[in-house]
Amino acid sequence: MTYVIEPIGHVESPLTDPDDAPRQGDEGAPPAWLVFRPAVRPGLRDLRPGDQVVLLTWLDRARRDVLAVHPRGDTSRPETGVFSTRSPHRPNPVGLHRVTVEAVEGLRIRVSDLEALDGTPIVDVKPVLGDVGDR
Amino acid sequence: MTYVIEPIGHVESPLTDPDDAPRQGDEGAPPAWLVFRPAVRPGLRDLRPGDQVVLLTWLDRARRDVLAVHPRGDTSRPETGVFSTRSPHRPNPVGLHRVTVEAVEGLRIRVSDLEALDGTPIVDVKPVLGDVGDR
Repeated sequence: MTYVIEPIGHVESPLTDPDDAPRQGDEGAPPAWLVFRPAVRPGLRDLRPGDQVVLLTWLDRARRDVLAVHPRGDTSRPETGVFSTRSPHRPNPVGLHRVTVEAVEGLRIRVSDLEALDGTPIVDVKPVLGDVGDR
Repeated sequence: MTYVIEPIGHVESPLTDPDDAPRQGDEGAPPAWLVFRPAVRPGLRDLRPGDQVVLLTWLDRARRDVLAVHPRGDTSRPETGVFSTRSPHRPNPVGLHRVTVEAVEGLRIRVSDLEALDGTPIVDVKPVLGDVGDR
Protein backbone atom coordinates (compact mmCIF):
# COMPACT_ATOMS: atom_id res chain seq x y z
CA MET A 1 0.00 0.00 0.00
CA THR A 2 1.36 3.40 -0.95
CA TYR A 3 0.04 6.91 -0.38
CA VAL A 4 0.14 9.97 -2.61
CA ILE A 5 1.25 13.40 -1.44
CA GLU A 6 -0.26 16.29 -3.35
CA PRO A 7 1.86 19.33 -2.48
CA ILE A 8 -0.06 22.30 -1.13
CA GLY A 9 2.53 24.79 -2.39
CA HIS A 10 6.25 25.35 -2.78
CA VAL A 11 9.20 27.21 -1.25
CA GLU A 12 10.64 30.37 -2.82
CA SER A 13 14.18 30.83 -1.53
CA PRO A 14 17.54 32.26 -2.60
CA LEU A 15 18.96 28.78 -1.89
CA THR A 16 19.32 26.90 -5.15
CA ASP A 17 22.42 24.73 -4.69
CA PRO A 18 22.21 21.79 -2.27
CA ASP A 19 25.93 22.15 -1.56
CA ASP A 20 25.44 25.72 -0.32
CA ALA A 21 22.35 25.08 1.81
CA PRO A 22 22.78 24.97 5.59
CA ARG A 23 21.92 21.64 7.16
CA GLN A 24 19.47 23.07 9.65
CA GLY A 25 17.49 26.30 9.79
CA ASP A 26 19.44 27.62 12.76
CA GLU A 27 22.73 27.39 10.89
CA GLY A 28 22.47 30.64 8.95
CA ALA A 29 19.50 29.83 6.72
CA PRO A 30 17.79 32.80 5.03
CA PRO A 31 14.14 33.81 5.18
CA ALA A 32 11.95 32.31 2.47
CA TRP A 33 8.43 32.59 1.07
CA LEU A 34 5.94 29.76 1.21
CA VAL A 35 3.69 30.01 -1.85
CA PHE A 36 0.44 28.09 -1.46
CA ARG A 37 -2.00 26.75 -4.02
CA PRO A 38 -5.27 28.69 -4.23
CA ALA A 39 -7.20 25.52 -3.36
CA VAL A 40 -5.90 25.51 0.23
CA ARG A 41 -6.57 29.19 0.98
CA PRO A 42 -9.21 28.47 3.68
CA GLY A 43 -6.67 26.44 5.63
CA LEU A 44 -4.31 29.42 5.94
CA ARG A 45 -6.72 31.94 7.36
CA ASP A 46 -5.60 31.78 10.98
CA LEU A 47 -1.84 32.01 10.39
CA ARG A 48 -0.42 35.25 11.80
CA PRO A 49 3.02 36.89 12.05
CA GLY A 50 4.77 35.55 15.11
CA ASP A 51 3.25 32.07 14.87
CA GLN A 52 5.73 29.24 15.44
CA VAL A 53 5.01 26.46 12.99
CA VAL A 54 6.39 23.16 11.83
CA LEU A 55 6.72 23.12 8.07
CA LEU A 56 6.76 19.72 6.37
CA THR A 57 8.32 19.55 2.92
CA TRP A 58 9.09 16.88 0.33
CA LEU A 59 12.85 16.93 -0.27
CA ASP A 60 12.51 16.30 -3.97
CA ARG A 61 16.24 16.32 -4.69
CA ALA A 62 17.04 13.67 -2.07
CA ARG A 63 17.99 10.06 -2.79
CA ARG A 64 15.53 7.47 -1.49
CA ASP A 65 17.78 4.40 -1.61
CA VAL A 66 20.03 5.44 1.29
CA LEU A 67 19.81 3.65 4.66
CA ALA A 68 23.14 4.67 6.26
CA VAL A 69 25.12 7.90 5.96
CA HIS A 70 28.22 9.57 7.29
CA PRO A 71 26.80 12.27 9.57
CA ARG A 72 26.94 15.68 7.89
CA GLY A 73 28.69 14.06 4.92
CA ASP A 74 31.90 13.81 6.97
CA THR A 75 33.53 10.54 5.92
CA SER A 76 35.79 10.60 8.99
CA ARG A 77 32.69 9.88 11.07
CA PRO A 78 31.26 6.36 11.18
CA GLU A 79 28.28 5.45 9.03
CA THR A 80 25.03 5.81 10.94
CA GLY A 81 21.59 4.30 10.34
CA VAL A 82 19.60 6.97 8.56
CA PHE A 83 16.75 6.96 11.09
CA SER A 84 19.26 8.22 13.69
CA THR A 85 20.20 11.15 11.43
CA ARG A 86 18.56 14.19 9.87
CA SER A 87 20.03 13.41 6.44
CA PRO A 88 17.71 14.43 3.57
CA HIS A 89 18.56 11.13 1.90
CA ARG A 90 16.13 8.51 3.28
CA PRO A 91 13.28 6.28 2.05
CA ASN A 92 10.56 8.93 2.45
CA PRO A 93 12.35 12.30 2.31
CA VAL A 94 9.96 14.45 4.33
CA GLY A 95 11.70 17.56 5.65
CA LEU A 96 10.79 18.99 9.06
CA HIS A 97 11.48 22.68 9.65
CA ARG A 98 10.59 24.76 12.68
CA VAL A 99 10.07 28.34 11.48
CA THR A 100 8.41 31.57 12.55
CA VAL A 101 5.81 33.28 10.39
CA GLU A 102 7.07 36.80 9.59
CA ALA A 103 4.42 38.01 7.16
CA VAL A 104 1.20 36.82 5.55
CA GLU A 105 0.24 38.19 2.13
CA GLY A 106 -2.67 36.16 0.82
CA LEU A 107 -1.27 32.88 -0.50
CA ARG A 108 2.32 33.94 0.26
CA ILE A 109 3.73 33.48 3.76
CA ARG A 110 7.18 34.69 4.70
CA VAL A 111 9.09 32.60 7.24
CA SER A 112 12.44 32.91 9.00
CA ASP A 113 15.49 30.65 8.82
CA LEU A 114 14.49 28.01 6.28
CA GLU A 115 17.16 25.68 4.90
CA ALA A 116 14.92 24.20 2.16
CA LEU A 117 15.92 24.78 -1.47
CA ASP A 118 14.03 26.97 -3.91
CA GLY A 119 11.13 25.03 -5.44
CA THR A 120 10.85 22.46 -2.63
CA PRO A 121 7.25 21.17 -2.45
CA ILE A 122 5.28 21.90 0.73
CA VAL A 123 3.46 18.97 2.36
CA ASP A 124 1.88 20.51 5.47
CA VAL A 125 2.03 23.27 8.09
CA LYS A 126 1.23 22.60 11.76
CA PRO A 127 1.42 24.76 14.88
CA VAL A 128 4.25 23.97 17.26
CA LEU A 129 2.76 22.24 20.30
CA GLY A 130 2.91 24.02 23.62
CA ASP A 131 0.90 27.18 24.06
CA VAL A 132 -1.03 26.20 20.95
CA GLY A 133 -1.14 22.55 21.91
CA ASP A 134 -4.90 22.51 22.33
CA ARG A 135 -5.77 23.60 18.81
CA MET B 1 3.42 16.82 -9.58
CA THR B 2 2.69 14.31 -6.83
CA TYR B 3 4.95 12.13 -4.70
CA VAL B 4 4.52 8.58 -3.46
CA ILE B 5 5.07 7.51 0.13
CA GLU B 6 6.08 3.90 0.59
CA PRO B 7 5.54 3.13 4.28
CA ILE B 8 8.58 1.72 6.08
CA GLY B 9 6.43 -0.11 8.63
CA HIS B 10 3.31 0.21 10.75
CA VAL B 11 2.16 0.85 14.32
CA GLU B 12 0.97 -1.94 16.63
CA SER B 13 -1.15 -0.39 19.36
CA PRO B 14 -4.10 -1.22 21.62
CA LEU B 15 -5.79 1.89 20.15
CA THR B 16 -8.23 0.82 17.46
CA ASP B 17 -11.08 3.33 17.69
CA PRO B 18 -10.42 6.93 16.58
CA ASP B 19 -13.03 8.15 19.07
CA ASP B 20 -11.09 6.63 21.96
CA ALA B 21 -7.62 7.81 20.90
CA PRO B 22 -6.06 10.72 22.79
CA ARG B 23 -5.41 13.78 20.65
CA GLN B 24 -1.74 14.03 21.60
CA GLY B 25 0.77 11.56 22.98
CA ASP B 26 1.03 13.36 26.31
CA GLU B 27 -2.69 12.99 26.97
CA GLY B 28 -2.63 9.44 28.29
CA ALA B 29 -1.57 7.59 25.16
CA PRO B 30 -0.27 4.04 25.64
CA PRO B 31 3.06 2.56 24.58
CA ALA B 32 3.09 0.99 21.13
CA TRP B 33 5.33 -1.09 18.89
CA LEU B 34 6.74 0.18 15.62
CA VAL B 35 7.08 -2.77 13.25
CA PHE B 36 9.46 -2.08 10.38
CA ARG B 37 9.81 -3.70 6.97
CA PRO B 38 12.88 -5.93 6.61
CA ALA B 39 14.09 -3.77 3.72
CA VAL B 40 14.88 -0.83 6.02
CA ARG B 41 16.74 -2.79 8.70
CA PRO B 42 20.12 -1.06 8.08
CA GLY B 43 18.50 2.29 8.80
CA LEU B 44 17.48 1.22 12.31
CA ARG B 45 20.83 0.02 13.55
CA ASP B 46 21.72 3.04 15.70
CA LEU B 47 18.39 3.42 17.51
CA ARG B 48 18.77 2.74 21.24
CA PRO B 49 16.51 2.73 24.29
CA GLY B 50 16.27 6.26 25.62
CA ASP B 51 16.52 7.93 22.22
CA GLN B 52 14.06 10.77 21.70
CA VAL B 53 12.69 10.59 18.19
CA VAL B 54 10.13 12.22 15.96
CA LEU B 55 7.92 9.59 14.37
CA LEU B 56 6.15 10.55 11.14
CA THR B 57 3.07 8.55 10.23
CA TRP B 58 0.44 8.59 7.49
CA LEU B 59 -2.93 9.07 9.18
CA ASP B 60 -4.71 6.71 6.84
CA ARG B 61 -8.14 7.12 8.42
CA ALA B 62 -8.14 10.92 8.12
CA ARG B 63 -10.21 12.94 5.65
CA ARG B 64 -8.17 14.92 3.12
CA ASP B 65 -10.87 17.36 1.99
CA VAL B 66 -10.97 19.38 5.23
CA LEU B 67 -9.52 22.92 5.37
CA ALA B 68 -11.17 24.26 8.55
CA VAL B 69 -12.12 22.48 11.77
CA HIS B 70 -13.59 23.17 15.17
CA PRO B 71 -10.55 22.74 17.46
CA ARG B 72 -10.66 19.36 19.22
CA GLY B 73 -14.02 18.69 17.57
CA ASP B 74 -15.67 21.16 19.98
CA THR B 75 -18.38 22.88 17.95
CA SER B 76 -18.67 25.65 20.57
CA ARG B 77 -15.24 26.83 19.43
CA PRO B 78 -14.89 28.79 16.19
CA GLU B 79 -13.78 27.07 13.02
CA THR B 80 -10.04 27.40 12.50
CA GLY B 81 -7.91 27.07 9.37
CA VAL B 82 -6.51 23.56 9.46
CA PHE B 83 -2.87 24.68 9.17
CA SER B 84 -3.28 26.38 12.56
CA THR B 85 -4.46 23.11 14.12
CA ARG B 86 -3.16 19.61 14.78
CA SER B 87 -6.30 18.00 13.38
CA PRO B 88 -5.61 14.68 11.62
CA HIS B 89 -8.01 15.80 8.88
CA ARG B 90 -5.96 17.86 6.37
CA PRO B 91 -4.82 17.68 2.74
CA ASN B 92 -1.70 15.59 3.45
CA PRO B 93 -2.40 13.77 6.74
CA VAL B 94 1.14 13.26 8.01
CA GLY B 95 1.18 12.66 11.76
CA LEU B 96 4.03 14.00 13.89
CA HIS B 97 4.72 12.25 17.20
CA ARG B 98 7.52 12.88 19.65
CA VAL B 99 8.24 9.61 21.43
CA THR B 100 10.97 7.88 23.42
CA VAL B 101 12.43 4.55 22.35
CA GLU B 102 11.87 2.04 25.15
CA ALA B 103 13.13 -1.18 23.57
CA VAL B 104 14.65 -2.40 20.32
CA GLU B 105 14.02 -6.00 19.25
CA GLY B 106 15.23 -6.38 15.69
CA LEU B 107 12.58 -4.89 13.42
CA ARG B 108 10.29 -4.10 16.36
CA ILE B 109 10.80 -0.92 18.37
CA ARG B 110 8.75 -0.12 21.45
CA VAL B 111 7.96 3.55 22.08
CA SER B 112 6.19 5.49 24.83
CA ASP B 113 3.02 7.57 24.66
CA LEU B 114 1.87 7.16 21.07
CA GLU B 115 -1.62 8.33 20.11
CA ALA B 116 -1.56 6.72 16.62
CA LEU B 117 -4.09 3.98 15.88
CA ASP B 118 -3.24 0.31 15.37
CA GLY B 119 -2.13 -0.29 11.79
CA THR B 120 -1.11 3.31 11.07
CA PRO B 121 1.60 3.35 8.38
CA ILE B 122 5.05 4.68 9.36
CA VAL B 123 6.63 7.28 7.05
CA ASP B 124 9.89 8.14 8.81
CA VAL B 125 11.82 8.32 12.09
CA LYS B 126 14.19 11.20 12.89
CA PRO B 127 16.18 12.14 15.98
CA VAL B 128 14.87 15.10 17.95
CA LEU B 129 17.20 18.01 17.34
CA GLY B 130 19.26 19.32 20.24
CA ASP B 131 21.97 17.08 21.63
CA VAL B 132 21.68 14.98 18.48
CA GLY B 133 21.31 18.01 16.24
CA ASP B 134 24.58 17.43 14.49
CA ARG B 135 23.81 13.99 13.13
